[in-house]
Amino acid sequence: MQYVVTFGILSDVDHQLLVARLQGNLGCRLDDEPRTARMTTEGTQTETLETARRLSEIASACAENAIQSASRLTEGGRLIDEHQVHAERIAQLATEARAAEQLVWYAETWAAAGKPDPLTEDQALAFSAEVVAKAWFAVDLHPDTFALDHSVLAQLHDAGTAAAVRAGLSDTRLRDVGARVIEARGAFKAALDDPAADLTRDTARSFARTEVAPIAQEMHRQDHLVPETLIQKMAGLGLFGCSVPESYGGTEMGLLTMVVLTEELSTASLVAGSLITRSEILTRALLQGGTEEQRQDWLPPIASGELLVGIAVTEPDVGSDVASVTCRATRGEHDGRKGWFIEGPKAWSTFAGRANILALLARTDPDISLGNRGLSLFIVPKEPYDGHHFVHTQPEGGSITATANPTPGYRGMHSFTLAIDRYFVPEENLVGGEAGIGKGFYLQMGGFEAGRLQSGGRATGVGQAALEKACSYALDRKQFGRPIADYQLTQHKIGRMSTHVAASRHLTYAAAQAMERDERAGQSAMKRGPATTQAAMCKLFASDTAVWVSQEAQLIHGGWGYSEEDPVARYVVDALVLPIFEGVKPILELKVIARQLLAS
Amino acid sequence: MQYVVTFGILSDVDHQLLVARLQGNLGCRLDDEPRTARMTTEGTQTETLETARRLSEIASACAENAIQSASRLTEGGRLIDEHQVHAERIAQLATEARAAEQLVWYAETWAAAGKPDPLTEDQALAFSAEVVAKAWFAVDLHPDTFALDHSVLAQLHDAGTAAAVRAGLSDTRLRDVGARVIEARGAFKAALDDPAADLTRDTARSFARTEVAPIAQEMHRQDHLVPETLIQKMAGLGLFGCSVPESYGGTEMGLLTMVVLTEELSTASLVAGSLITRSEILTRALLQGGTEEQRQDWLPPIASGELLVGIAVTEPDVGSDVASVTCRATRGEHDGRKGWFIEGPKAWSTFAGRANILALLARTDPDISLGNRGLSLFIVPKEPYDGHHFVHTQPEGGSITATANPTPGYRGMHSFTLAIDRYFVPEENLVGGEAGIGKGFYLQMGGFEAGRLQSGGRATGVGQAALEKACSYALDRKQFGRPIADYQLTQHKIGRMSTHVAASRHLTYAAAQAMERDERAGQSAMKRGPATTQAAMCKLFASDTAVWVSQEAQLIHGGWGYSEEDPVARYVVDALVLPIFEGVKPILELKVIARQLLAS
Repeated sequence: MQYVVTFGILSDVDHQLLVARLQGNLGCRLDDEPRTARMTTEGTQTETLETARRLSEIASACAENAIQSASRLTEGGRLIDEHQVHAERIAQLATEARAAEQLVWYAETWAAAGKPDPLTEDQALAFSAEVVAKAWFAVDLHPDTFALDHSVLAQLHDAGTAAAVRAGLSDTRLRDVGARVIEARGAFKAALDDPAADLTRDTARSFARTEVAPIAQEMHRQDHLVPETLIQKMAGLGLFGCSVPESYGGTEMGLLTMVVLTEELSTASLVAGSLITRSEILTRALLQGGTEEQRQDWLPPIASGELLVGIAVTEPDVGSDVASVTCRATRGEHDGRKGWFIEGPKAWSTFAGRANILALLARTDPDISLGNRGLSLFIVPKEPYDGHHFVHTQPEGGSITATANPTPGYRGMHSFTLAIDRYFVPEENLVGGEAGIGKGFYLQMGGFEAGRLQSGGRATGVGQAALEKACSYALDRKQFGRPIADYQLTQHKIGRMSTHVAASRHLTYAAAQAMERDERAGQSAMKRGPATTQAAMCKLFASDTAVWVSQEAQLIHGGWGYSEEDPVARYVVDALVLPIFEGVKPILELKVIARQLLAS
Repeated sequence: MQYVVTFGILSDVDHQLLVARLQGNLGCRLDDEPRTARMTTEGTQTETLETARRLSEIASACAENAIQSASRLTEGGRLIDEHQVHAERIAQLATEARAAEQLVWYAETWAAAGKPDPLTEDQALAFSAEVVAKAWFAVDLHPDTFALDHSVLAQLHDAGTAAAVRAGLSDTRLRDVGARVIEARGAFKAALDDPAADLTRDTARSFARTEVAPIAQEMHRQDHLVPETLIQKMAGLGLFGCSVPESYGGTEMGLLTMVVLTEELSTASLVAGSLITRSEILTRALLQGGTEEQRQDWLPPIASGELLVGIAVTEPDVGSDVASVTCRATRGEHDGRKGWFIEGPKAWSTFAGRANILALLARTDPDISLGNRGLSLFIVPKEPYDGHHFVHTQPEGGSITATANPTPGYRGMHSFTLAIDRYFVPEENLVGGEAGIGKGFYLQMGGFEAGRLQSGGRATGVGQAALEKACSYALDRKQFGRPIADYQLTQHKIGRMSTHVAASRHLTYAAAQAMERDERAGQSAMKRGPATTQAAMCKLFASDTAVWVSQEAQLIHGGWGYSEEDPVARYVVDALVLPIFEGVKPILELKVIARQLLAS
């Protein structure tokens, strides 16, 4: 089973990275082979951590076994549509088990290094216990569908397991976690033990607080485009070139650092954390499938922020079913210059107004039966526009007419519906050249798969922001003569919120590390291997966490949480977009995560 | 135990109302004594319904037993703050058990009448199974705190119970429910078997669709005050006098009809469903504690809609802790006229701009140690204003300076922060006259308690609107060559959403009937008896349902659900206010529901 292998390999990879971290060389390449032996942590672990590890292993065993059964049931995923409800359960369970594993792993790392982090240990135990409890619940309700092996069931229902779950999820423990988180006003430690990575985080955090936070609320409330000054400052820091190799003018800071950076920016504003996403997606597509000339032409100005990118894939009638794209590109020429005429509709093209270039997916083969094999990816230059509406007419006579769809949150970039009319694109803008014909779908999907990593970071940032805001409010707001932070229910809720945010964070970091390793090993994301599954998992889990945590934070604020003047109201509406974009939740669960897990 | 008694009595009351319904006389008074024997439904019930009833009874038994234990643990609720987390669980379990009971009861009613409703029977089974499953889960995790009797535990963990729960929650059943709900585009039957009540519903539904729905989206998006034409049309239908006795110019249509009406208006717009709330609250306060002269003076113009009402209770620093109100009223006189000078802040005073009178809670006794016993209720006349800001200066020299707090939803009425400066109110505007001094808190709370019924209707309406929208979208939107309604996951999700909306509806109807009966029996809401508990329960459950269902509906819409042009995006932001206003969720759970349930 792929997933079993995944778990195995990743433990080793994680171990490698752990060693790398502890040696202070994160960010450097790890070219040595993964080791197979588990790190020995005996004698360095607390009982809490040991219990957390045991529960996390039970959750993982349960997930692995459930995947095996479901793989048989669905014939390796082929019949997934006949078992969608169960497939969703599998995706959820596997994702949560993986998150628990990562949270435990992080706590173990530091315990092993002699720098234990008691708060994270408690969070790891509480979260692992919650995942096992959910597995109980799901398996109890659908025993025949799960069809777990006797040994796994016995472990799940063992009296020792039950006692550990109850202890892990005890009201006292969660309240205690909450009280400590509140006292720190939500501030977290997720030490990277790497001066460079920590510095990046500190820089990003400081930038987010001084440059982004002061403008974030008004940008949201006025639905203004992100100010040019902020774009230029981010460009100056090299943020648009995170994934561009140094040889093409980028900083190539690595995926983990990129994710950490994204998270920090997103705590101040989801938009700030999202600005680089589109550049990242096109960069990845060019690195995977562009010609050398295209890389040299496009990557340097993308990295410098001179050219900002929009993505044009979705259409009004084509959402998740990307293979059905109708926008077409037809060969032609203008003034003796060979190229393509693009014609058709696009929707939800975020930042398409301000963008200088659009990465646009179009049908180059009119034979609709080819599905996604008839699609190619184009780089479409245009002028930047500021407002919610623009008509761009090119000298060649083509045009793009665009109107932004108003959205409750995720403002500051505007998401446009485009009508494209005989828009001329020179042949050198077909990504991959002639060899790129029919490969657009794969390039785009490869970009999205990496984009989901970033979304894990974005969602973790939004969840973190809501958590911090809730802690501060709870300390400052008095009711019935005491700060509401003193009440058990407040502490308990913040305790649970904090465990989920921590789990989101470490799941995301682990996914970034896994993808980084895959890339170094020369495996492309198009292979849809374990790392892309994990990227999808972190996007799924962190998004749901951000939605839930932001709404709990809003409730903690009472009426004031429903005032648009309070950032928590922004976090709530911003979070709601997270499970929708880049593969709406059920598609991510079924067509990405479950499909990949169940493939035999 | 109060709750046990409650269950017993209410079954009988429900039975009475059932008989009344079946005889077509709902709306008439039921003065006969409740019967004690359970209706015999043998031979008329399907197996589905029998299983649903069995599960619902297990859930209720579990809730009752858990309440008994928790009452001992908290010494009749006195120590509730030492056990807040568990108290919240008790409130949730008791509420869900009660909702299951009502949904089953409704299905039984119609089966017994020879008009079975197979869809509701399936929903009742699925929902009851879900409640029992949640009870399993909660009790398994916290067995010592729940401390259930052996007999109850045995019933909960009985193999037959487990089989029934699994069958009730089977993927097939929920998908089948969903498919049927989708086919009907979410339309529901909840026949009242009373020509007058049905007519009221039909009228309200038609009014909501023709008069409200066409303006609702723009009113929300532009954050405009509800148009005067709509207010006048509603006034013309007598809607502001729902609870005003006929002798004072009202329609006194009864609480069930009022709730049905509210639900129907809310499917088109939460604001339309909320317009009458404030008049209802003041009406109730006047009926409970006003002098006869005050009733004669104020009720007729309230009923006719000539005087619209705002409520001014909450303050910037005083939310749930109403007893800490700081706004004060000091005796004085102006031009020889005796009265009170009001001074202080108020917050979240919804509709305070357009309102002609404010029902304002102020401290009449400066001794702060008196707490809520130092508060009195005033009727404060003012001029109506349209915008988001006003300064009202009275000839006597006092003023009210007000600014609306911007909110993401629940727009159309504007919620103001008020600064009140030496505002003169004549002595006859003190509700209850001299006898009303110190009674303001109780009068206000009595009004809120009934207001929560209405909130149950409002939340049910918002949930229903989201459900209908999701069904229509699922039928109309094609992805991967099929309407998304054809996919199992869509059906399953809509199946579950529909069971929760149905449970909200019937819990709310039952609460209205219980309160109606209490009032007829001369029990005031101030007594805080079973009916007020149920009103709080329906507000709690229906609000959570609306939040969850609207967000599921948004996800079903994919990207388009995040466009502010789609009503589903409005349902989402509107729903978010429901767990916040009229007692924010944790307060409602702990200080109202749990406190009342645990009181010995």
